[in-house]
Amino acid sequence: MTRDDYIESLRRMKRRVFIMGQEVENLVDHPLVRPSLNACAMTYELAEKPEFADLMIATSNLTGQRVNRFTHLHQNTADLVAKVKMQRLLGQQTGCCFQRCVGMDAFNAVDSVTYEMDQKLGTEYHARFRRYLKHVQEDNLVVDGAMTDPKGDRQLSPSKQADPDLFVHIVERKPDGIVVRGAKLHQTGALNSHEIIVMPTQTLSEEDKDYAVSFAVPADAPGILMIYGRQPSDTRKLEGGRLDVGNREFGGHEAVIIIDNVFIPWERVFMAGEHAFSGQLVERFAGYHRQSYGGCKTGVGDVLIGTAQSLAQYQGTDKASHIKDKIVEMIHLNETMYACGIACSAQGKPTASGTYLIDLLLANVCKLNVTRFPYEIARLAQDIAGGLLVTLPSEQDLANPEVGPYLKKYLHSVDRYTTEERGQMLRLMENLTLGPGAAAYLTESMHGAGSPQAQRIMLARLADLEKKMELARRLAGIKERPSK
Amino acid sequence: MTRDDYIESLRRMKRRVFIMGQEVENLVDHPLVRPSLNACAMTYELAEKPEFADLMIATSNLTGQRVNRFTHLHQNTADLVAKVKMQRLLGQQTGCCFQRCVGMDAFNAVDSVTYEMDQKLGTEYHARFRRYLKHVQEDNLVVDGAMTDPKGDRQLSPSKQADPDLFVHIVERKPDGIVVRGAKLHQTGALNSHEIIVMPTQTLSEEDKDYAVSFAVPADAPGILMIYGRQPSDTRKLEGGRLDVGNREFGGHEAVIIIDNVFIPWERVFMAGEHAFSGQLVERFAGYHRQSYGGCKTGVGDVLIGTAQSLAQYQGTDKASHIKDKIVEMIHLNETMYACGIACSAQGKPTASGTYLIDLLLANVCKLNVTRFPYEIARLAQDIAGGLLVTLPSEQDLANPEVGPYLKKYLHSVDRYTTEERGQMLRLMENLTLGPGAAAYLTESMHGAGSPQAQRIMLARLADLEKKMELARRLAGIKERPSK
Amino acid sequence: MTRDDYIESLRRMKRRVFIMGQEVENLVDHPLVRPSLNACAMTYELAEKPEFADLMIATSNLTGQRVNRFTHLHQNTADLVAKVKMQRLLGQQTGCCFQRCVGMDAFNAVDSVTYEMDQKLGTEYHARFRRYLKHVQEDNLVVDGAMTDPKGDRQLSPSKQADPDLFVHIVERKPDGIVVRGAKLHQTGALNSHEIIVMPTQTLSEEDKDYAVSFAVPADAPGILMIYGRQPSDTRKLEGGRLDVGNREFGGHEAVIIIDNVFIPWERVFMAGEHAFSGQLVERFAGYHRQSYGGCKTGVGDVLIGTAQSLAQYQGTDKASHIKDKIVEMIHLNETMYACGIACSAQGKPTASGTYLIDLLLANVCKLNVTRFPYEIARLAQDIAGGLLVTLPSEQDLANPEVGPYLKKYLHSVDRYTTEERGQMLRLMENLTLGPGAAAYLTESMHGAGSPQAQRIMLARLADLEKKMELARRLAGIKERPSK
Amino acid sequence: MTRDDYIESLRRMKRRVFIMGQEVENLVDHPLVRPSLNACAMTYELAEKPEFADLMIATSNLTGQRVNRFTHLHQNTADLVAKVKMQRLLGQQTGCCFQRCVGMDAFNAVDSVTYEMDQKLGTEYHARFRRYLKHVQEDNLVVDGAMTDPKGDRQLSPSKQADPDLFVHIVERKPDGIVVRGAKLHQTGALNSHEIIVMPTQTLSEEDKDYAVSFAVPADAPGILMIYGRQPSDTRKLEGGRLDVGNREFGGHEAVIIIDNVFIPWERVFMAGEHAFSGQLVERFAGYHRQSYGGCKTGVGDVLIGTAQSLAQYQGTDKASHIKDKIVEMIHLNETMYACGIACSAQGKPTASGTYLIDLLLANVCKLNVTRFPYEIARLAQDIAGGLLVTLPSEQDLANPEVGPYLKKYLHSVDRYTTEERGQMLRLMENLTLGPGAAAYLTESMHGAGSPQAQRIMLARLADLEKKMELARRLAGIKERPSK
Repeated sequence: MTRDDYIESLRRMKRRVFIMGQEVENLVDHPLVRPSLNACAMTYELAEKPEFADLMIATSNLTGQRVNRFTHLHQNTADLVAKVKMQRLLGQQTGCCFQRCVGMDAFNAVDSVTYEMDQKLGTEYHARFRRYLKHVQEDNLVVDGAMTDPKGDRQLSPSKQADPDLFVHIVERKPDGIVVRGAKLHQTGALNSHEIIVMPTQTLSEEDKDYAVSFAVPADAPGILMIYGRQPSDTRKLEGGRLDVGNREFGGHEAVIIIDNVFIPWERVFMAGEHAFSGQLVERFAGYHRQSYGGCKTGVGDVLIGTAQSLAQYQGTDKASHIKDKIVEMIHLNETMYACGIACSAQGKPTASGTYLIDLLLANVCKLNVTRFPYEIARLAQDIAGGLLVTLPSEQDLANPEVGPYLKKYLHSVDRYTTEERGQMLRLMENLTLGPGAAAYLTESMHGAGSPQAQRIMLARLADLEKKMELARRLAGIKERPSK
Repeated sequence: MTRDDYIESLRRMKRRVFIMGQEVENLVDHPLVRPSLNACAMTYELAEKPEFADLMIATSNLTGQRVNRFTHLHQNTADLVAKVKMQRLLGQQTGCCFQRCVGMDAFNAVDSVTYEMDQKLGTEYHARFRRYLKHVQEDNLVVDGAMTDPKGDRQLSPSKQADPDLFVHIVERKPDGIVVRGAKLHQTGALNSHEIIVMPTQTLSEEDKDYAVSFAVPADAPGILMIYGRQPSDTRKLEGGRLDVGNREFGGHEAVIIIDNVFIPWERVFMAGEHAFSGQLVERFAGYHRQSYGGCKTGVGDVLIGTAQSLAQYQGTDKASHIKDKIVEMIHLNETMYACGIACSAQGKPTASGTYLIDLLLANVCKLNVTRFPYEIARLAQDIAGGLLVTLPSEQDLANPEVGPYLKKYLHSVDRYTTEERGQMLRLMENLTLGPGAAAYLTESMHGAGSPQAQRIMLARLADLEKKMELARRLAGIKERPSK
Repeated sequence: MTRDDYIESLRRMKRRVFIMGQEVENLVDHPLVRPSLNACAMTYELAEKPEFADLMIATSNLTGQRVNRFTHLHQNTADLVAKVKMQRLLGQQTGCCFQRCVGMDAFNAVDSVTYEMDQKLGTEYHARFRRYLKHVQEDNLVVDGAMTDPKGDRQLSPSKQADPDLFVHIVERKPDGIVVRGAKLHQTGALNSHEIIVMPTQTLSEEDKDYAVSFAVPADAPGILMIYGRQPSDTRKLEGGRLDVGNREFGGHEAVIIIDNVFIPWERVFMAGEHAFSGQLVERFAGYHRQSYGGCKTGVGDVLIGTAQSLAQYQGTDKASHIKDKIVEMIHLNETMYACGIACSAQGKPTASGTYLIDLLLANVCKLNVTRFPYEIARLAQDIAGGLLVTLPSEQDLANPEVGPYLKKYLHSVDRYTTEERGQMLRLMENLTLGPGAAAYLTESMHGAGSPQAQRIMLARLADLEKKMELARRLAGIKERPSK
Repeated sequence: MTRDDYIESLRRMKRRVFIMGQEVENLVDHPLVRPSLNACAMTYELAEKPEFADLMIATSNLTGQRVNRFTHLHQNTADLVAKVKMQRLLGQQTGCCFQRCVGMDAFNAVDSVTYEMDQKLGTEYHARFRRYLKHVQEDNLVVDGAMTDPKGDRQLSPSKQADPDLFVHIVERKPDGIVVRGAKLHQTGALNSHEIIVMPTQTLSEEDKDYAVSFAVPADAPGILMIYGRQPSDTRKLEGGRLDVGNREFGGHEAVIIIDNVFIPWERVFMAGEHAFSGQLVERFAGYHRQSYGGCKTGVGDVLIGTAQSLAQYQGTDKASHIKDKIVEMIHLNETMYACGIACSAQGKPTASGTYLIDLLLANVCKLNVTRFPYEIARLAQDIAGGLLVTLPSEQDLANPEVGPYLKKYLHSVDRYTTEERGQMLRLMENLTLGPGAAAYLTESMHGAGSPQAQRIMLARLADLEKKMELARRLAGIKERPSK
C-alpha cells in the first residue's frame, strides 16, 4: 500500500466522526484532519524511498515478506534500535506526532503476552493474534492502539465506579464473540486508522475481570464513534492561509472513541477475562511506548532546535555566546532522551514468544526524561526567539496594502533574510511551543504512554534496592544479616 | 474616572488599528480586544472598592489628591511594596496581563531621570514631565509605556542599520516641537491606552543621539497606527462560546505601533538628544518593570495553582502524595518570585527627584527567576491536569444531542463535580499554559522587561565582585595587593 | 563584653566536653575548637566597630540600653531586616557558621509564645523569660538555642519510643524546679556558649506533655555533657600548617549535648507541660531560623563566589564567556536566597507580645531555597576551579626542598599570581565545598532549621489553596458552591 | 597475574613518590595508598571469578588469548557495552575510582590514531604500539593514561607560555629515542601503575609540534617522580580506626607526575611531532573516557543510593512518600547516565584499524550529564541522611567508657539496627558526598575526561545544526537557498 493507496483506503471507510459539534462525511479532505493524515501517510511515503528502507522496512517473521516496520514484531535488538531511529526520522520529517506507533507497540505487547497466557492457561489467543497481525502486515494497515479508559474517579477501581462503563468491558459473551462497551480517550491518530486494537488500561483483579479485555475492531464498525479533540490554535488550519498555521503540512490529533455495544467475533479477541495478565500487557505496551518517545520526540526536538538556530541567524544573534550555549543545551537534552531510547533498545531481551522486549527500567527512565526535557527545550527556544513569537501580527496584516509594507519594513532584520521567512520560522516555533505542536511535543510528552508518576512507580519496582543496600553494607563493613 | 467612564473615553477616541488585515472601527466591542479591555478596566474597578483602596489608591505628591496608583510616583518603600501587591491582586483577578504597568513604570523612570538630566545639563524636562503627569493623574489615564524598537539586525547600532527607522528617532526639530518616526513592538495593551509615552530602547552613543528621544503622544494622534499581534488560540474569542475560550472574561494583547512622522510639541518632549542619559532611563524603566513581574505573574501563578488543585479534586487525585508535592512545588516557586518582588521594593532608595527606585540588583534577580519558574509551574500544572488538557472535544460537541451525552457520561469523574466544570477548568489551564494566557504567563515572562540575558548583564555589573574576592582573599590568608 | 572578655569568660567556665574520645580541659585554645570560637567572637568584634553599629547593635525594648543584636527582641520590620543583613555580614567575614543565631531566634520565639501562653492559661512564663533575657542582654551572653532531639525511630512519638529519654523531658517536678533528662543533637556552637535554652522539637499531644518543656541552663551546669561532632577534614586544623586548612582562622562545630538529670529552678523554666503551645514554639523558632539562613548562607555564598572568581583570574579563565556566565548564575542564586530573607523580614508582623515575627510562608520559602541553591553554587564553583581542587599536593610538599620547586614551577599559572596564592584559594574552596565549611554551607543548609520536608509541610499549610481555587473558578466561569 | 601477583609486582618497583612532604619507600603498605591499591587490585580479583568472566575477560585480537578487558582493544559494540558494564560492576564493588580505565582508554585511542597516522604519513607507530600492547596484555599490566598538562596560563598555547615545560614536550631527539620533559596533573592511580602512557593534552599547531608527543614509560624510570594529591579527610586513613574512614577498604588517589628529562627509546614512542593528529588523539581518548563515566560513576551511584535507602530504614523514614520519591529520583538520574554510557557504546563504529570507537556525540552527552547528576544525587542523599551526617561524634567517642554509652543510647533509632550500623552508613555517605569519595564522585565527575565546557564544544561541533535548520525550513515552507 502506497501513500496514495492509504489515503484512498481511508476515503472508502464509513467512519462516524464528530468534529466541533458536526458529523463529518469527508474526513480525508477536512482541513482540521488532513495535516494529521499527511503525517501518518509519511509512514508509507518514506517506506517507498530506498534511502530509508533499512529503517522503514523489516522482514516479517510471520511471512518472510518485507513489511512496513510499523507492523513488525521486533526480532532482535537491532529491530528495537531501528524502531527508535525510524521514529526520530519521522519526527524530523513531520515535526509532529505521526500516530502509527501505538499500533506497533500494541502488536508487540499483545504478541508476547498472549503467548505467555496461552502457555499458562491453555488459551489460544496467540495464534489468533498472529493471524490477525499477518492480515495487518499484508494489507499494511494503520491500527490505533487503544489503552486509556476514562477512569472516572481515580480513587475507584473499574467495578466500583458509579458508572460501570468508565472502563471498557465485556457486557455479553456469545457463542460467536463478545459485546463490549466503554470509551477510550486521547486516541492518537484515531481518525486516520483502519483498525483499533483495544487493551485494558491497568492491572485488574478478579472482581474486575470483565474489564480484562483485548480485541481488534475495524474503525468503522457499527457502534464505534469518534469525537475529535481540540488543540491550541487548531482553527488556524481553517483560515486558509499559509503563514499562521506554522507547520505548513503536518499536524496531529487525538480523539475520544466511543464503543457502544460493539460485537467482536472471537477470532479478533485476544483477552477476555484473564485479569492476571492485564498488568503485564499494560506494562509491556507502556514499556514499548515509553521507548518510542525517545525517538519521535527527539525528532521533533531536532526541528525545534533548527527553528531556534534559524531565528538566531535571521535576527543576528547566532554569534552571541549565550545563544550558542542555549543551543548546545537544547542539543544536550535532546540527545539525552535519544540515548535513553537507544539504550533500552540495545539492552532488549527476547520474550518467550521470540518477540524482543526493551529493557523496562531504561524505557521508563527514557520516558521520565521526556516528561521534563521538552519543556526546557521549548523554554530555551522561546528565549532565543524573542518576544515577537507571541506578538507577530497575522499574515493578513502582512498582505494588507496599508500595513503590510510597514510590517515588512519594521520586522526586517538581518539583511539576507526576508521578513516573511522570519515570520514563518516564528510561527513554526509558536506551533511547537504554544500551538497544536505543543500539544504533542509538551503535554503528550508528559502524559502519553503514562504520566510521570507511572514511570516513577515502575522505577521503584524495577531498581533492585536490596542489592544496592547490600553493596553499601559491604563497603561500610556491616555484617550481613537477614534484611527487614 | 470609573470603569465605565474609562470604556466610554476609549470609545470616543479615533484610533487607527488593524486586526487580522482589517481596519477596525469599534475597538471597544471587538471580541478579540474586549477581554483585554476588561482586564485593563479592572484597574479602575478595583480602585472603586474600599477593600482594595490601600493598594489601588495613593496620595499624589504632585497634587495631594487621591490618585490611582498606576499614575503615582513612588514616595517610599511602602509605595513600592504596595505596587507589587496591587499587581498580584490584579493578576489574581484577571488571570492575564492587565497592561497598565508599563505606563506606571515609565512615569517613575522618566521622573527621576529628567530631574537628574536637568541638574546636569540645565534642561527643563522634569517640570514639563511633572505637568504632564499631573494631567495623567487628574484624568486617570491609561498610558502605554513604549520602549522596544524593532532593532533590525541585532549586531548593528541604530544609525548603522540599513534602514534608519528601525529605532524611533527625531527626523526634524522645529521651533514648536519635533517630528519622530519609527515603530515600537510588543506594545502591551496599546489598544486600550489613551496615551503613549515613548522611551529609547538602549544605551546610545553620540552618533545615535537622534535616537535618544522620549515623549508623550495621544494614542490617536495623526501618524500613529497600531497592528494587533496574534496570540495562540486567539480566535476562540470569535467562536461565541463560553467554554473553549478558557478565561471567560479576560485576556491581553500586544500590538505593533507605527509612528509615522508624528509631530510632538515641546511640552510633551522629555528627552531629545541627551544620549548620555538614555542608558539610565532604560535601566530604571527596566528595573521597575522587572520588579512588576514579581507581582503580576505571581497573581497569575495563584490562578494556575488554583486551577491545578481544582482539577486534582475534580479527578480524585488531590489526596495522592505526589500531587500534593507538586502543588507545594508550584507554591514554592511562585512565592520565591513574589519574595524577590517584595525584597527589591523593601530595599528601595530615593532618587534625587524624591521618587523611590527599587534595589536594581534584586529587581533583576526577580525578573531572571520569572524567566524560569512560570515554565516549571506550567509544566507541573500540566502534569496534574492529565492528558485531557489537549484532547478535550469542543463545547459544540458537549452540546450536540448525539455525542454530548456520551461525553458527559465518559468524562464524568468525581461524583460531586460535573463534566462541564471539569471542562471549564481544563480550558482555563489550556489558556494559561498553551493559549493566549501562556503568551503572557510564559513568553512575556521570558521577554517582557528584557530577555534573560539583559538581566544577567545587569547582575554582572551590579554584583560587587571585587568585594567578594577581597572577602575570599582575607579568609584564605592572601595578602592584599593592588588588584589586576 | 568585648571579644577578649568573651573569650576570657569562656575560659572561666567548667564545661565538660569530649573531643575524639578525650575529655578536654582547655577548650578555648584547642585547635579543633578555636576556629569556631574565633567565628563566634566576631559577633563581639564587629559590634565594637562603628561602621557596623547599625547592624550589630540595637536598643533594647527591655532596658532602653544598646545591646548586641544577637540578644535583641525584634521591635519592627527594620529590626528583622537588620538581622538578615547582620548575618550576611558575619557570613562574609567568617566564611562559616558563627553560631550565635540559634539563641537569638530562640529568644524571639520564646518571648511571643510565653506571652500568649500566659494570656491563655494564666501562667507566668513571660515575665520570667524577660527577666532572664535582661540578664542575657546585660551580660551579652552567647546562648545555644537547643531544639533537635535524637527522635529515635522517626515513626514513633516521644512517649512511644522504646527509650523514654529520646526526647528531652521532665523526669521530676519539685517545689523549686524541675529535673530534666535527654539529649539535643546538632548543637551549633555549643562549646562556645555560656548558656543553653532548650525547646521542644515538635508538636506534642496530651500524652507527651512531659516533653513540652523549655528552659535555660548554664552550659557548665552539673549533668550537662557535650560531645564534639566530627566534620570532614577536621583534623587538618591539628596539622599545624597554614595552607591546607583552607579557612585560615574560622570554622564551626556542632555537638551532642547530654542532659543527664539536670535540675532547673522555676525561674528558668519557660514551659513545663503546656503541650498545646509546643507546636507554635517550634513553628516560630523554626520560622526565625529559616529567615536566618537567607542571611548567613548568602554571606558564605559571597565568599565562595569571590573564591571562584579569584581562581578564574589566577588561572586565566576569567574572560571566558562560560565562566562569566557561571559566576552570574552563582550571584543570581545567592541573591535569590537573600531576597527571600529580606522579603519575609519586610513582611513581618507584630505578635501579641510586641515582638515582631517574620512572614512565615516566605521564611519557609527562603529556607527551602537554601536547601537547594548552595549545592548548585558549590557545583558551579567546582566547575570553575578545575580538577586541582582535589589533586593539589600538601603544603609540606610545597615546602619540601626536592619537590617544592617542581610544584611551584608546574602549578604556576597566570604570571602575576603565585602558586601559593592559587593553592590558598583552592584550599578555601575545598573547605567550603568538600571540607568543614561544606558541613555548614551544604549539609547544614539542608537540615538546619528543619529538613526540606518540614518546610514543604508548612507551605502546604500556609498557602491558601481554597482562595486560589476560588480565583480559578471565577475566571473559569464556575458558579460558586460550598467547597468539598 | 592475580591480585596478589599484582601487589607483589608493585612492591618490586623502585618508584619515587612523595606523600605529604616525605619520600615514601614502602608504597604498597602505606595507609594513604593502600585503599587505592585495593580498588585497583579488584580489576584482577574480579577477573578471577567465573561469574564476572564475561565482563572482565576478553579475547585479544592481537594474540587470541584471554586477556583482562582493561588491556583489550574493543572489537565490536558488544565489547564497548561490556566495558561500561564492567565499570559499573567495579564502581559497585569499590565505591570509588579503581583507576585502571585511563590506560584502557589510552590504548584504544592510540591504536586507531597511530593506524591512521601511519596510513597518511608513512610512519610506523601502529605496529610499534601493538607490540607494546601485546606486552601489556601478556603481563596484564596497569598503565596510567596521562593526558592533562599543567597548562599554565590558560589563555596561552604551549610554546607561548613563559615556561616552555608547562606542557610535556620533546627536548631532544636522539638516534635511539627522545628526551622529554614536563609534568602531568591529576594522574589517577599513578602510584598503582606499572607503566605510564603519555598523550598530548590538546589540539596543537605547527609551532607547537614538539608538544605533539605520545609514548610509554615505566612508572619507575629515572626522571619520573610522583607527588600524591591530598583529598578531603584523607588522614582519617591514618587514624587507625574502622568507622570514621567511611569506605572500609577502598579509596582512590591522584598524583602529579614530574617527567624530568626522561629518555624514551623509539620502540616506545607513538607520536613525535605529528601535530595534525594531536586533536584526534585527544578527542578519541576523551571520548572513550567520557563513555567510561557512564559506567563507573553509576556503580558508585548504586552504592550511594543503597546508603541512602539503608539510612532511611535505620532511621524509620523509608516508608515516607517523600523519601521514596527522592530514592526514585536518585535512581532515575543514575540510570540516565548509564543509559548514555550504553547508548554511545551500542552506537559505536569501527575505525580504520578495526578498533571500535564509541559514538562521540553521545559519549559527550554522557559525560555532560555526569558533570551534573552526581551532585544532585549527593544532595538528595544528604537530604535523606539527616544532619547527623556532619555532626556524628568520632569512633573514639563511641568507644569511650563515659560518653560511648550515652551515644549508643541517644543515637539509637529503629530497634532492629544498632547505633554502630547507623554510624557506619553515615560515614560511608560522608565519604561519598563530602570526603575522599566525593573527590571522585563529584569533583572528578566534573573535570575528569575534560571539564563540562569541553563537552559542550564537542556537542556544538558534532550536532549537525545545518541539517536541523533544513528540517525546520522545510516544515515552515521556506524555500531552500544557499545557506549563509
